[in-house]
Amino acid sequence: MQTDQLLKGIGAAPGLAIGRAVWWRKERPEFTIHTVEDPEREVARLKQAIEQAQEQISRLRETAAERMGESEAAVFDAHLAFLSDPAYTGEMERRIRDEAKNAEAICAAVTQEMSDMLAALPDEYMQARADDIRDVGDRLLLILTGRQPFDPSLLEPGSVVVAEELTPSDTAQFPQGIAGMITARGSKTAHAAIMARTLGIPAVLGLGKALDQIQDGDTLILDGTTGDVTRNPNPQAEQAAREEMRRQRERRERALAAAKEDARTADGKRVQVFANIGSLNDIELALQSGAEGVGLFRTEFLYLENDHWPTEEEQYEAYRRVLEAFNPNPVIIRTLDIGGDKDLPYAELPKEENPFLGHRAIRFCFSHPEIFKTQLRALLRASVHGTLWIMFPMIENVSEIRQAKELLAECRAELVKEGVQVAEKIPVGIMIEVPAAAVTADLLAPEVDFMSIGTNDLTQYTLAADRGNEQVAHLYDAAHPAVLRLVRQTCLAGKKAGIPVGMCGELAGDANMTEILVGLGLDELSMSAGAIPEVKERIRSVQTNAAEAKSERALAQSDPDAVRRIAQE
Amino acid sequence: MQTDQLLKGIGAAPGLAIGRAVWWRKERPEFTIHTVEDPEREVARLKQAIEQAQEQISRLRETAAERMGESEAAVFDAHLAFLSDPAYTGEMERRIRDEAKNAEAICAAVTQEMSDMLAALPDEYMQARADDIRDVGDRLLLILTGRQPFDPSLLEPGSVVVAEELTPSDTAQFPQGIAGMITARGSKTAHAAIMARTLGIPAVLGLGKALDQIQDGDTLILDGTTGDVTRNPNPQAEQAAREEMRRQRERRERALAAAKEDARTADGKRVQVFANIGSLNDIELALQSGAEGVGLFRTEFLYLENDHWPTEEEQYEAYRRVLEAFNPNPVIIRTLDIGGDKDLPYAELPKEENPFLGHRAIRFCFSHPEIFKTQLRALLRASVHGTLWIMFPMIENVSEIRQAKELLAECRAELVKEGVQVAEKIPVGIMIEVPAAAVTADLLAPEVDFMSIGTNDLTQYTLAADRGNEQVAHLYDAAHPAVLRLVRQTCLAGKKAGIPVGMCGELAGDANMTEILVGLGLDELSMSAGAIPEVKERIRSVQTNAAEAKSERALAQSDPDAVRRIAQE
Repeated sequence: MQTDQLLKGIGAAPGLAIGRAVWWRKERPEFTIHTVEDPEREVARLKQAIEQAQEQISRLRETAAERMGESEAAVFDAHLAFLSDPAYTGEMERRIRDEAKNAEAICAAVTQEMSDMLAALPDEYMQARADDIRDVGDRLLLILTGRQPFDPSLLEPGSVVVAEELTPSDTAQFPQGIAGMITARGSKTAHAAIMARTLGIPAVLGLGKALDQIQDGDTLILDGTTGDVTRNPNPQAEQAAREEMRRQRERRERALAAAKEDARTADGKRVQVFANIGSLNDIELALQSGAEGVGLFRTEFLYLENDHWPTEEEQYEAYRRVLEAFNPNPVIIRTLDIGGDKDLPYAELPKEENPFLGHRAIRFCFSHPEIFKTQLRALLRASVHGTLWIMFPMIENVSEIRQAKELLAECRAELVKEGVQVAEKIPVGIMIEVPAAAVTADLLAPEVDFMSIGTNDLTQYTLAADRGNEQVAHLYDAAHPAVLRLVRQTCLAGKKAGIPVGMCGELAGDANMTEILVGLGLDELSMSAGAIPEVKERIRSVQTNAAEAKSERALAQSDPDAVRRIAQE
Repeated sequence: MQTDQLLKGIGAAPGLAIGRAVWWRKERPEFTIHTVEDPEREVARLKQAIEQAQEQISRLRETAAERMGESEAAVFDAHLAFLSDPAYTGEMERRIRDEAKNAEAICAAVTQEMSDMLAALPDEYMQARADDIRDVGDRLLLILTGRQPFDPSLLEPGSVVVAEELTPSDTAQFPQGIAGMITARGSKTAHAAIMARTLGIPAVLGLGKALDQIQDGDTLILDGTTGDVTRNPNPQAEQAAREEMRRQRERRERALAAAKEDARTADGKRVQVFANIGSLNDIELALQSGAEGVGLFRTEFLYLENDHWPTEEEQYEAYRRVLEAFNPNPVIIRTLDIGGDKDLPYAELPKEENPFLGHRAIRFCFSHPEIFKTQLRALLRASVHGTLWIMFPMIENVSEIRQAKELLAECRAELVKEGVQVAEKIPVGIMIEVPAAAVTADLLAPEVDFMSIGTNDLTQYTLAADRGNEQVAHLYDAAHPAVLRLVRQTCLAGKKAGIPVGMCGELAGDANMTEILVGLGLDELSMSAGAIPEVKERIRSVQTNAAEAKSERALAQSDPDAVRRIAQE
C-alpha cells in the first residue's frame, strides 16, 4: 500500500481531521429522451414522483432540525417550496403535454434551465438556490427511474466522506461524528463549503480527478485550511496530526467560552466582530455566537422567497425584527443587491452576457426607483426599533452616493409628512466592492458615515475571476496582495475622513488572516456566525504593532500563497 | 418649430457636424413561426435566399472597395464566409428538416444563437463578428419575407444619418459626403462607432428614445466628442458651430501633413505613437497614418477566420508579414486572447456565466499548452524578420509571468535544437488590464521588459461594467479617475524598474485625453490608425510640466465627466 500520498485541493472549511474514507456513492439516474404516445400517463408518473419526493424531504427536514437546528433544516422548506412551484413542477407538467416527451427528459431539462438561471444571479444566497433545485431535480429523477439514494447509515463516526459533489440534502443527512469531507468539485463558496463551515466539519473541495485514487477504508488526514489531504499517512505523521487536533480543539473551546465578551487586541485596541445575516433564521445563532451587531444584513431573501416584489409592510416587519433582536447594537442593512436575470418570476430583467459586470444592485435600484423607494421607506419606518445603519452596494463614484442619499431624504420627507416616526440619525454607508471605489476611497469617504469592504466581489473584480467559476477558482483568493492593498487604501481613507471601516466578505471570517486584517487597520469584521468565537480569540492575541509589520510584509508579496504563509507564521 | 433642443448621447467618433436629418428606415422582417408539411420546400427557399444574399453582398463589397478601400470591404468577405459556413447556413438546413419549421423561424433562431455566442467572446474583434452575423441574418430574413432594404441613394451630401442602429452593411453603403450619424443604440465600442472613426464621420450613439423626436429634414448639430446633439439650432449657434468646424478641419489638415514625423512634446519629450492592428489588412493604413510601430497586434483573427486551430506555419506566415512591413520598428504581438465559449466551431469551451471574468487569454493558454506553444514557436520563428516584442494578456501575478517565460524558453530551446534561427533578444512584456496587475505593477515590472495598459478591459473590471452592456454604458468610461490612478501607478512602477509603459486601449486614441496621458507618464500610445495624426499633433502642443499638473488635477476628480472637462480646458 502506498503511504503518505499527498493530494492538493481547496481548503474550504478549516480544521484538521483524521478518519476512514467512505465514498458517498451516488446513483446517477439513467434515462433516454423519447416522445410518448400518452403524455397524461407521464404527467401522472411525475405527480406521483413529486409526492414521494415531498415525503422524503419532510422526513429529512425532521432529522436535520433535530441534529442541526431549525435554521439548517430550513433548506428543506426551500426544496418543498420548489416542488409546489408552478414555475418548476407546473412547468414540467405543461411541457410534458406540449412536447409529448417522457417525464425524465422534461424533469431533467426544466431543472437544468432553472438552475442555470439561478446560478447566474450575483449573490451567494441565490446561487445556493441553484444547488437546491438540482438537488430536488436529482431526487425526482432517482424516484422516476426507480433508483435508491446512498444510505447514510453506512457512515460510522470518524468517517471522512468522499464524494464527487455534495448537495444540501446530502450534508443534511450526515450523522453525528463525521470527521471531515472531501470532494472532487466545488470551491470555497460552494454550498457544501458553507454547510461544512456551519457544521464545523473540516472540508477540502475541488480535488478533481485525484479523488479517484481514494478507496473506501483508506486512512485520510485532511487539513481544511491548507487544502492538503494525506492518504494513508505513516504512524508518525498520524500521531503529529492527532496532537495538532487536540491543540486546535482546546483553542476552540477557549474561544467558545469567551465568545460573548468584547474583542480587544493584547495591547487594548477594540475591534468589533459582527455577523453576516442572510435571513431572519440566522439571528439566533448570531447572538449565541457573540455577534456584537450585524455587519451585513442581506435583504435579497425578502425578494427571492416571494412571488411578488415585497411590500413596504412585509419588509418593515423583517427589518423591525432584526433591529429589535440586536437592539441597541447596530444592524447594517444592505439595500437590494439583485442582478441581471430575467427569470426571477416577477421581475423582467434582460439577460446579460456578464451579469457580475452588469445592471445589478444600486444600478438596478436607480433604474427602478419605485422598488428602491419601497425598501428605503420600510427601512426608515423600522429605524425606530433599534440602531439602523443603511448601506448601499456597488457604489463607484460620488454622484451615486448623492443620488442614493437624495432618494433616502425624499422618503424621509414623505414619511414625516405622513406623520410616521423615523429615527433622527441614521448612519449611511457604502460597500467597497468595485475596485474603483477602493482606488478612490479618499474621494468617497467624506460623503458617508462608514464604509464596509465586500471582499467577495472586490476580489472577483480585482482579479477578473468569477468566484463561481471553477475554471478560475485557482486564481480567486481574497488574500491576493492587490486585494489587501485596496483594503489598506480604504482603511487609510476612512481614517483620514474619521469614519469606521469594516469588512463583510468571506475574508473577514478567515481566522488565519485576522492578524493581517487588524494590521491593515479595519475597525470591524463581519462574518458568518460560526467564525465569530475563533476570530475574537485571534484578535485577543494580536499585538497591533506586530500586526502592522506583518501586514506590511504581506502587501509586498507577489501572490496569495506567499501572503497565507506569512499569515500562518 | 422648437429650436435649440439639446439631446444627450454618447460621443463615439469625434468631430463636429451640421446637416439635415435623414432617417435610415429599416424594414423589420415580419414572420410567424409555424411547422410545415414540406420541410424540403423551406430548404429550397432558404437556399434561394442565400444565393440572392450572396449576390447583394458581392455588389456591396465592390462599392465599398471603391469608396473605402480593400480593408473596409473585407467585412463583406466575412459575410460571404458566413453564408457558406456549415455551422451557420448548414445548421439552418439541418434544423428546418429536424424541426419541420418555416425557413424564417429557423433562420432567425440560428442567427440569434450564433450572434449571442460571438458577442460573448471577450474581444472587440469577435464581437464585431456578432454584428456581422446579425447583419447577414437580417438580410436573409428580408429576402425570405420579400421586403426591400433602405435605399442609400436618398442620402444627399451633408445628410446626418439617423437610425435605430447601424450595421457594417449599412455604413458600407454610405455615399460620399455624409456629414455625421446618430443612433439610438450602440456604445463607444460598437461596430458603428469603429466604422465612423475609420470613415472620419462624427457620430453620437446611444441617444435612446430621444431619437424619436427627430424628423426627416431637421437641422442637426452633432458633437461626436461630447455626445451633444442640437436639434434645429438658432442661427447664431449654427454659425458658431460652422466656425469651430473650420478650425477643426484646419487642425486635421495640419496633423495629416505631419503624420509621418515623430511626435515630441513642445519641451522635447519623445512619445511614441503606435498602431493597434487586428489583421494583416490593417498594416497599410497604419503605415500611411504614421504609425511608428505596432503597439498591439491582435492574433485572434488567425483563430477566428479558420475552421481549425491555426498551424505553426499559418501563424508564422502572418507574423513574418507584419514584422517585415514595420521593420526595423517594433511590433508588439499579443498572444492569444480567446475567451470561454464552447461554440467556436473547433474549440470545445464550456459555457461560462461571466466570460469576461473567466477562463480567457493566458489562463486558457496555460491550460492548453499545445495551442500556446504552437503560437510561441511561430512567433520565435518569425522573430528574425523584424523587431518582435511578445506580450502576454490578462497577467495578474508574478508566477504567471514566470510560467509564460518558461514555456517561451522551452520553445526557443526546441527550435534551436531543430536548427531554426531565432532572434537573440526578444523583449517580453505584459498587458496591464486586470486591476490586480495595476495595483501590484511594482511587483510585476521587474520581471518584464515592458508593460502596456489595456484600458478597455482595465476599465470594465475596475468599474465592474461590461463594456458591451448598454445597461451600464453610462458607467463605462476609461476617464474615470480610478482608472487614471491605476495608469499612473503603472507608469511609476515602470519608471522605477526602468522599463517603458505604453497604452493600447481606446483611451490612447482619444486626442482630448492626450495631454493628461502624457502627464501621467506614458512612453507610448497605441491606437487605431485613424487617430494617429491628431494624437501626434496634440503631443506636439503639450508642455510636460503643465500636462503633469493637469493630470494631478484629473486624479483628484470624483467622476469621469469632471476629468473630461479638465481635459478640454
